[in-house]
Amino acid sequence: MVLDIRFVLVETTHPGNIGAAARAIKNMGFTNLYLVSPLKFPHPEAWVRSCGAEDVLNNAVVVDSLQEAILDCTLVFGTSSRVRSLQLPLLNPQQCAIETKKALASQNKIAFLFGQERMGLTNEQLALCHYHLYIPCNPDFASLNLGAAVQIMAYELRNNLFQDDLKIKETFENVSMSDMEKFYQHLEQTLINVQFLDAENPRQLMRKLRRIFNRAFLQRNEINILRGILTQINKQKSAV
Amino acid sequence: MVLDIRFVLVETTHPGNIGAAARAIKNMGFTNLYLVSPLKFPHPEAWVRSCGAEDVLNNAVVVDSLQEAILDCTLVFGTSSRVRSLQLPLLNPQQCAIETKKALASQNKIAFLFGQERMGLTNEQLALCHYHLYIPCNPDFASLNLGAAVQIMAYELRNNLFQDDLKIKETFENVSMSDMEKFYQHLEQTLINVQFLDAENPRQLMRKLRRIFNRAFLQRNEINILRGILTQINKQKSAV
Repeated sequence: MVLDIRFVLVETTHPGNIGAAARAIKNMGFTNLYLVSPLKFPHPEAWVRSCGAEDVLNNAVVVDSLQEAILDCTLVFGTSSRVRSLQLPLLNPQQCAIETKKALASQNKIAFLFGQERMGLTNEQLALCHYHLYIPCNPDFASLNLGAAVQIMAYELRNNLFQDDLKIKETFENVSMSDMEKFYQHLEQTLINVQFLDAENPRQLMRKLRRIFNRAFLQRNEINILRGILTQINKQKSAV
Repeated sequence: MVLDIRFVLVETTHPGNIGAAARAIKNMGFTNLYLVSPLKFPHPEAWVRSCGAEDVLNNAVVVDSLQEAILDCTLVFGTSSRVRSLQLPLLNPQQCAIETKKALASQNKIAFLFGQERMGLTNEQLALCHYHLYIPCNPDFASLNLGAAVQIMAYELRNNLFQDDLKIKETFENVSMSDMEKFYQHLEQTLINVQFLDAENPRQLMRKLRRIFNRAFLQRNEINILRGILTQINKQKSAV
């Protein structure tokens, strides 16, 4: 699957936001940044805020019009926190990511548009899109930072397009119920030895202890530690 | 459901990141910010970057130790992009949000920890947590901006805890199949009138046109416009 996905920032005012967007894009494994008439670009502030995503900035495509940025695209999402009078179909970030995944399967080129910081996309710019991307947010404080909006969408794309779980180097070995049974016998005998448990009147103690240790899903090395402790307690006891 | 969720920033170096985190938290409808030994706070840069979330900053709880910040919490998530030698159970942001939702149902207090910008949480800090929150990202460029990490987690919490769809003021009225049938008859008759369609040899034209307009799920006002156009075409034709 070729990831023909571009992030298009329209008439961005602050170069720092361009840098933050570049970083967010690269963090999530994407590369294509388009800038439509940025107020200040190139600008050192963009490179500072990109924190090492300078390849994304160096390869950014700067164009004069939004039409030019999306000319070859077949699927275009426009981000906005406001509903419009002629409303496009509304999708949340996850729904956009799912549509993107479907579209990528048949070699589409996909664009995500993000408007100017203060005003967002104009009605005319949004009318060029197939879908209105709406990021759920606090209705009383709805203006997301530009870099944050890009970050959320890029995160959802990664979530839905990649299968990447963090690789755990440590190998866990869960223990079987028969190992647990031996541990519980060891524990019970020890509690009798130290005279905490009365074998004549055990009450529900072992049931309560089982509930604790079963819930913990003990690993091989952990059960070894616990049984080592029990062995040592018994040794001390018999030495008395 | 009381949202007893706090975002805990540990030993943050840049006050701008504290401001960005405050904005992200408020954008997603949360309010509780804890700061453990911030390098510079209060600092004007935090207020600038918060972009209006100064209530979150004004009410931020500043403490000297992480333990103090989470003393009354019953569920603690620690964010890190690295696996550790004694690994906690790993959850992605969505899984953390689902655990949070379950926990809130029984009045738990929940904390999300975010480490120092360069180093992240130390092993000792992470060991205080129940879960390791891992935000999926590009393995070759894994260091997320602090504000961006807070933004993603706050977004997933909102996604899972709130039901908020954007309210569309416009009321859509889908049209019934019988209305569509009348439209298609009108269209067909018009195409015959203008001699585009040969009634003797219609081929698959109407089937193809039906496919287009059915896919568009026409609204009442849209079908009215289209039928208005057809009526006008017919009027022009008969005037000739």
